[in-house]
Amino acid sequence: MLKSVLNKPPPAISYDKVESVGPLTIILLESGLELVPPEIRREPSVVKNARRRGKDPSRILLDISIHYHAARRLRDWVKRGRPDIVHTTLLQVLDGPAGRSGLVNVFVHTYQGLIVSFKAGVRIPRNYNRFVGLMEQLLSEGRVPPGKGEPLIKVEDYGLEDFARRNGLKGVVLLWERGEPKGLSTIVTEALENNYAIGIGGFQHSDFDEKTLQIATVKYSVYKESLPTWIVASRLITAFEVKLGLLSP
Amino acid sequence: MLKSVLNKPPPAISYDKVESVGPLTIILLESGLELVPPEIRREPSVVKNARRRGKDPSRILLDISIHYHAARRLRDWVKRGRPDIVHTTLLQVLDGPAGRSGLVNVFVHTYQGLIVSFKAGVRIPRNYNRFVGLMEQLLSEGRVPPGKGEPLIKVEDYGLEDFARRNGLKGVVLLWERGEPKGLSTIVTEALENNYAIGIGGFQHSDFDEKTLQIATVKYSVYKESLPTWIVASRLITAFEVKLGLLSP
Repeated sequence: MLKSVLNKPPPAISYDKVESVGPLTIILLESGLELVPPEIRREPSVVKNARRRGKDPSRILLDISIHYHAARRLRDWVKRGRPDIVHTTLLQVLDGPAGRSGLVNVFVHTYQGLIVSFKAGVRIPRNYNRFVGLMEQLLSEGRVPPGKGEPLIKVEDYGLEDFARRNGLKGVVLLWERGEPKGLSTIVTEALENNYAIGIGGFQHSDFDEKTLQIATVKYSVYKESLPTWIVASRLITAFEVKLGLLSP
Repeated sequence: MLKSVLNKPPPAISYDKVESVGPLTIILLESGLELVPPEIRREPSVVKNARRRGKDPSRILLDISIHYHAARRLRDWVKRGRPDIVHTTLLQVLDGPAGRSGLVNVFVHTYQGLIVSFKAGVRIPRNYNRFVGLMEQLLSEGRVPPGKGEPLIKVEDYGLEDFARRNGLKGVVLLWERGEPKGLSTIVTEALENNYAIGIGGFQHSDFDEKTLQIATVKYSVYKESLPTWIVASRLITAFEVKLGLLSP
């Protein structure tokens, strides 16, 4: 598993423009990423799936595509068990010109309230099943790789209410269907100039929790309808890469 | 499997701008999407994986993350066994505002030379393992869903040399590391105005085959280095969605 997290140093960048634009911080909020919770660990689909993979049911990810019937018994089940959303979105954020250059700081806040941080420039597995294994290690051990030394990915010891302060940020731009309509580069510019993170929902259905709405400094919308997390993230990152001069418009 | 391909009709769009801009055609070229080829069907990793899934080795997808040792014996192995590239890219192309509105025609040309077409507005499974099952059905049966009626996804009966002509296109803009540097919206505009498809490599390493380079009408580059297929596709589609007026810059 360790080999699949390649941590390449950011390449040197020759564009003057880049030097003057700070990194962009993205946080996926209330993401459907968690280990199977205790109340459904004895369900047949969970036990069978864990056994097949040679793991304990307490150390496998909840995945709606496998544990659908069991997961439906959970509170807010439509927001949970979607590690694929986190995976597809991280591939957009970390694998592009800005991510590769270490110019995107990314965090994943989970439905259960954990905050996961990724070292700038980290590469995550492109294969979904390998990503699942990596997240299982992360959520079981609290860090990847396990043991000592600087982690590439880790579970932080603070909650969402302390997220901005603990990361030297002044606030969070929340992207929300019911927010004020704004353009992509307008949002990116406002986030960079004010030292705000950009928050995007990391769940499939339903709405943000009241606690999440409370940490929003401003609330904007990029489209008339709800869009998948990976679409919102890639469209914003494109605007950021154009602003950096890494891509030409 | 059928239920996972939801074919919703394109929603009505109120933007006048959209009406005047035709659909954009994207083709992924030499993509690492194929059933396990005959020469490695008896390899232990293939047999074990097929048995575990209750399928015949001739009807499972080649996947480098599972069949690595066996796949390395294949010619051009670095270009093959990467269905994840096709999946992650299709999610960017089909799930965004333009894709949902039926304004992107997408094709997947495979390493083996097949051309796969997707009905405009089709939704593909977000879960990788479900996508793999769907592609196995497609490549075994030639279409999804199997049987009669209009297919949502199908293997076409023509090759790459006839692709443009058979789809009423005048040519192909090939995105290639060694092509002439161009901006994202410049490429999209040129493709739309000239009725060209945009071709993006659907493989991880190595270069295009000579036959693929020959069908290119023009060759452009969007970045100084090679980028993953899903990054190139999402950055271009963002430029297209801004041009359509579906997203604000």
